[in-house]
Amino acid sequence: MDFSSFVTSLGTSLIIFVVLMLVFTWLNRKPGNAVIYYPNRILRGLDPLEGRTMTRNPLTWIKEAVKASEADVIAVAGVDAAVYLVFLSSGMASTPVVLKVFTVRLKVASFWLIWRVSLIDTFVDAVLAILVFSGIILLPVLLPVAATDNGTQSTIDSNSQGTFKNLDKLTMGHVQEGSLRLWAFLLGVYWVSFVTYYVLWKSYTHVSDLRAGAKTSAVVKPEEFAVLVRDIPAAPPGQSMKDHVDSYFRALHPETFYKSMVVTDNKKANKIWEEKEGYGKKLARAEVVYAESKTTGKPEGTRPTNRTGFLGLVGPKVDTIDHCNEKIQELLPQLEAEQKITLKEKQQGAALVFFSSKPAAVSASQTIHAQKIDTWTMMEAPEPQQVLWTNLSKKFYEREIRSLTVYGIVFLTVCFYMIPIAFVSAFTTMENLKKYLPFLKKIVDQPEIKTVLEAYLPQIALLVFMALLPTFLMFLSKEEGIPSESHAVRAASGKYFYFIVFNVFLGVTIGGTLYGSLKEIIKKPSQIITLLGSSLPKSATFFLTYVALKFFVGYGLELSRLVPLIIFHLKKKFLCKTEAEVKEAWAPSDFGYATRFPNDMLIVTIVLCYSVIAPIIIPFGVVYFGLGWLVARNQALKVYVPRYESSGRMWPHMHARIVAALIVYQITMLGYIGILRKFYYAPFLIPVIAISFIFAYVCKQRFYLAFFHTPLEVACQGTKEIPNMESIYAAYIPPCLSTEKLQDADQFEDAHSHSLRTTSL
Amino acid sequence: MDFSSFVTSLGTSLIIFVVLMLVFTWLNRKPGNAVIYYPNRILRGLDPLEGRTMTRNPLTWIKEAVKASEADVIAVAGVDAAVYLVFLSSGMASTPVVLKVFTVRLKVASFWLIWRVSLIDTFVDAVLAILVFSGIILLPVLLPVAATDNGTQSTIDSNSQGTFKNLDKLTMGHVQEGSLRLWAFLLGVYWVSFVTYYVLWKSYTHVSDLRAGAKTSAVVKPEEFAVLVRDIPAAPPGQSMKDHVDSYFRALHPETFYKSMVVTDNKKANKIWEEKEGYGKKLARAEVVYAESKTTGKPEGTRPTNRTGFLGLVGPKVDTIDHCNEKIQELLPQLEAEQKITLKEKQQGAALVFFSSKPAAVSASQTIHAQKIDTWTMMEAPEPQQVLWTNLSKKFYEREIRSLTVYGIVFLTVCFYMIPIAFVSAFTTMENLKKYLPFLKKIVDQPEIKTVLEAYLPQIALLVFMALLPTFLMFLSKEEGIPSESHAVRAASGKYFYFIVFNVFLGVTIGGTLYGSLKEIIKKPSQIITLLGSSLPKSATFFLTYVALKFFVGYGLELSRLVPLIIFHLKKKFLCKTEAEVKEAWAPSDFGYATRFPNDMLIVTIVLCYSVIAPIIIPFGVVYFGLGWLVARNQALKVYVPRYESSGRMWPHMHARIVAALIVYQITMLGYIGILRKFYYAPFLIPVIAISFIFAYVCKQRFYLAFFHTPLEVACQGTKEIPNMESIYAAYIPPCLSTEKLQDADQFEDAHSHSLRTTSL
Repeated sequence: MDFSSFVTSLGTSLIIFVVLMLVFTWLNRKPGNAVIYYPNRILRGLDPLEGRTMTRNPLTWIKEAVKASEADVIAVAGVDAAVYLVFLSSGMASTPVVLKVFTVRLKVASFWLIWRVSLIDTFVDAVLAILVFSGIILLPVLLPVAATDNGTQSTIDSNSQGTFKNLDKLTMGHVQEGSLRLWAFLLGVYWVSFVTYYVLWKSYTHVSDLRAGAKTSAVVKPEEFAVLVRDIPAAPPGQSMKDHVDSYFRALHPETFYKSMVVTDNKKANKIWEEKEGYGKKLARAEVVYAESKTTGKPEGTRPTNRTGFLGLVGPKVDTIDHCNEKIQELLPQLEAEQKITLKEKQQGAALVFFSSKPAAVSASQTIHAQKIDTWTMMEAPEPQQVLWTNLSKKFYEREIRSLTVYGIVFLTVCFYMIPIAFVSAFTTMENLKKYLPFLKKIVDQPEIKTVLEAYLPQIALLVFMALLPTFLMFLSKEEGIPSESHAVRAASGKYFYFIVFNVFLGVTIGGTLYGSLKEIIKKPSQIITLLGSSLPKSATFFLTYVALKFFVGYGLELSRLVPLIIFHLKKKFLCKTEAEVKEAWAPSDFGYATRFPNDMLIVTIVLCYSVIAPIIIPFGVVYFGLGWLVARNQALKVYVPRYESSGRMWPHMHARIVAALIVYQITMLGYIGILRKFYYAPFLIPVIAISFIFAYVCKQRFYLAFFHTPLEVACQGTKEIPNMESIYAAYIPPCLSTEKLQDADQFEDAHSHSLRTTSL
Repeated sequence: MDFSSFVTSLGTSLIIFVVLMLVFTWLNRKPGNAVIYYPNRILRGLDPLEGRTMTRNPLTWIKEAVKASEADVIAVAGVDAAVYLVFLSSGMASTPVVLKVFTVRLKVASFWLIWRVSLIDTFVDAVLAILVFSGIILLPVLLPVAATDNGTQSTIDSNSQGTFKNLDKLTMGHVQEGSLRLWAFLLGVYWVSFVTYYVLWKSYTHVSDLRAGAKTSAVVKPEEFAVLVRDIPAAPPGQSMKDHVDSYFRALHPETFYKSMVVTDNKKANKIWEEKEGYGKKLARAEVVYAESKTTGKPEGTRPTNRTGFLGLVGPKVDTIDHCNEKIQELLPQLEAEQKITLKEKQQGAALVFFSSKPAAVSASQTIHAQKIDTWTMMEAPEPQQVLWTNLSKKFYEREIRSLTVYGIVFLTVCFYMIPIAFVSAFTTMENLKKYLPFLKKIVDQPEIKTVLEAYLPQIALLVFMALLPTFLMFLSKEEGIPSESHAVRAASGKYFYFIVFNVFLGVTIGGTLYGSLKEIIKKPSQIITLLGSSLPKSATFFLTYVALKFFVGYGLELSRLVPLIIFHLKKKFLCKTEAEVKEAWAPSDFGYATRFPNDMLIVTIVLCYSVIAPIIIPFGVVYFGLGWLVARNQALKVYVPRYESSGRMWPHMHARIVAALIVYQITMLGYIGILRKFYYAPFLIPVIAISFIFAYVCKQRFYLAFFHTPLEVACQGTKEIPNMESIYAAYIPPCLSTEKLQDADQFEDAHSHSLRTTSL
């Protein structure tokens, strides 16, 4: 790709972004759209436009995003969102410093340009003069580099000349092979690495404190008093699972055990409940239609009717309101009967056990209970709203086997997806397009279209591919037997990360030669270094455009929320009748960490890997994360509603993946500098790789377990008052098993216990 | 090695064993030797010869060893000894079944011999007759093998003929390449593997129960109420470490915290205490000498004297009794002063924390306390007598670095030791001996000497090498920063196992070509399979002799206890004066698991690896473990005194290493059958290797953690009565810090606390 198509790409991206920003500013102010742009505020009962002047300034949102403190973000969007912002800003924090390195390097380059001229001219006085002049200006910048640059004076750089029209001139590929100047690049790798270590360490400490803060907050959270117990062995004959669990925990925790709730197989009860809920919605809708018909048509109104058969198209015609009422009356006793059966007879080998104090629950969740470790496995209970009920009763080895199977499928998916991407990569060069689709030749040869196609085609193809995957990966993760939603999101995000790094980053970089290369790599794994090193520089401009497209178009779309806006207005106009339906139409989603985070990680990987090879990518990275940080803050404060709170449990995964990207980068640079640029001192990069591993190890030792378990220190802080245990218990009752008359809790005598001990705190 | 030298080797071994047995029977009955042969019984206050008729039957001890129940062994020698016996008998249990396979295989061979004759003769009627006859006799035995043997009728075995003079005729190397008969051997591998799985699973369950039984016993053990806390961060200014620890645990465990004991730097106090004890012993000895001189010489006696200088050789002459009394009087106040200073000013960053109930201690030891995981690390306290005090205060990362360094040194040791062993291996062939030491030619050429030399030289060289190592490895293990003696023994035993497998097993097998081969292996790791496969059969007879030597001479020496007996009698005659000194002279040691177990594992590895290649090794293995079991029971019941009790904590290590040996065996067989015997179906062995890994994984998941932590279930069983906490606490006071007036515990106010809460069980 030449420079003009790169500029075209950047330009069009920028134009799209500006247009989207203007659209946002315009739509944003219309009161009818407030539910789209401020749903979070509305749900919290705030005036969406409170304290805002109706300014036309398209940058007001930026001011607001910057103004908000971290505490505000946590209050509104939870610790998870705050941790995500830490991730974005840690990306930012490291890139500016990298940027500084880049400017230093540019100055070094100009110094060497002058130096070379002086050598060609061989005028000693000129050399002296130049040295004195450049010395006065550049010494403070160069001292760190100069210290390692002894004896390089005879090296002649023949590459620094020429115009900068071709982007490749700005890359490291332009430095002569074996030149001692490569020291500067090598030290650049060190510099980037140490900056990364520093920033990551600070971030981990910060997130760790955030998490501890969230865990010690005065708000009573049900999950802090509950422990999830799985792999419960079969109850002794003549004893129900419930009694079995109760007697076991009462014996082991006589002082602190409160109650247990045995997990039941709710499939059938749930089905009846959903049917009942469906008729409830239908009824509400029919009533609104009936009421409307009274005002618009005849004063007595038209009672809505429907057919009872398939999709309401066949079968006898009935009055909707009467029909729904009948059905609900019919289903209610059914549901109650099924609830009783479920609670009594469908008890499974898993339970939630409630303790009368936080430290007791924390301690119990970390203590091995049974002598056979694969029975009575304990873990901290997930939040009620994110429990994946059907997974709880899956057995230990079943989970292991499922996990293995899922990873097998993911492995195959990763390999299988490589084919279309490699194909797109090879296909979307102009020459191939003309060759294989000759009828396009006329269109393609027009210069404007050609430039646009060249700039965007591969990137768009890539983006489309990526959109199909997340749902599938989320499904797979849930199939593993993971007990909570947030854990499943983490698992899906991990898989997506592997996918994206292998397919997008490696796939595009190594490109068409991937399959041929794979064989080589399997034969000789060290080959991968050479291969990556040699392929990276070629793909630099592709990734530059990719990053630009991502942030301009991606963030533009996210900020303007055009898609949800259009869908909402369409739904409101044609589908929604009741208030509840309208609310459902604009109900905001959550952040969607499962895809958002791996995509960001891809950019981190790309920017890191190119930071020294083609430093021009760094400002793009800075803009990506800076803009991302602003947009994410805006959305966190105004739009998205968190579905769950895992108190920053995601961070260790982010951390590990950034370190992994760093190590990939270091190995790539080792290959690139050593093998491709034939730099004799490249092995000096090996220590920094070792340091990365040590860094990862120390971080894991120091921080990780506190994300996995709650430390006792943390659990003992916060309020000491005894909470309302019954409400904590009720929070975990699934909707299909709850009755309107909740105070009459006798119903739960079967699978849910009554241990009316007073707590002995 | 030909057959005659093998028989010579066996014969001499057997003669030595019989002689040692007779010596044992003879010495055993002399009352003066009871302290050597029954020290364990004497220490328990039993009559050593109680219930024994003074029979001359040299096999009485066997009857007694067999008669004792496992409960007896546990009562006398602890769970660790019982677990070791389980290990020995699991080795035995698997070998007899293997033996059965071997006999089946011999019968198969004879069947094929007949079959071949019938083919050569090509008389159809003869074939029929032979088939009918052999069928009637052999069918019940052959059916399982025959089912897999279809289509092998044309194979001609030309190897089964000839005399069995040469041992190699009995090995699998004698089967034709690619013969379908190799199926029998292949299935033999499967059979051995499944027998191993079955036996190991049973054993693990059994040991797990033994451990739980030991943990729930009614005897109050101090370590069950204590938790070891390490990596305590610096105390806040103005607070002593003791107050820091107390306030931390009182806040987190308000109900169950009893007291804490901060670890102090006892180096100086210990030195003074040891000096004092030394003078005490000297004094006792001098008094006995003085008393003796009264009876033998002049009635007023001769007061013993000594010189105060170097080794009692220089310096002024003093009266020993007066001198010692003076010194002791001098040291006592010094010791008391130093104790005070130590407790007050030498507090370190580690502590023992005592809880008022077992479950509380167990729960606390498994719960993460601090948010920074590398501080306040908790673990179950070791027994008082096996605490390695100086290691307790070593910091987290210091321990990691020490561990890494030690493993580096062990790696170097393993590599360095290879050189002499490879040298011995190459040197001790007769030809080389004659070549390099021509002056020996005359002696060596005499047939008797030649046979003996050929049979024993390499084995003796090996045994001598092995004797030098354990102390060094134990020292290294303690340097790692391990907190308890039993853990250090496990660590040393692990190192010794690596050493022994690499050096003895691989070293001897691959022998002189080892260094050349290493290069090959590094280049292409799969090479190891070929190499092992091709080298194994050659070393079969070497290992046969090695095993025989081990059990005949090794067990003979152990049972007869000749070395301790001689040392004891020498000491008693020339050195010991006081009763305490005599007791010290015969004080029995413990089992010495650190070297005993890896040596047994070497035999397991050898027997497993040769079980199919040269099945004749199996009876040797059976005798080794059978005899070992008998001797170990005898020693456990009568001789050794356990120094500590880790409740079978060693088992997971034994288990893992047996599985590792099994996997080595399976891989070796894959290489041997597949590459060397060119058997087309050898890849059918790959599934069994996978099964081994799965087996190892499942065992670890199911059992391991219960050996690492105490399950709450186990801790809650047993006595519920509140023990005397003060005596539990006192058990951990190191001797150099204890005073005669223990009831006056005010002294421990500084580093050891008083929290006189009543326990709230």
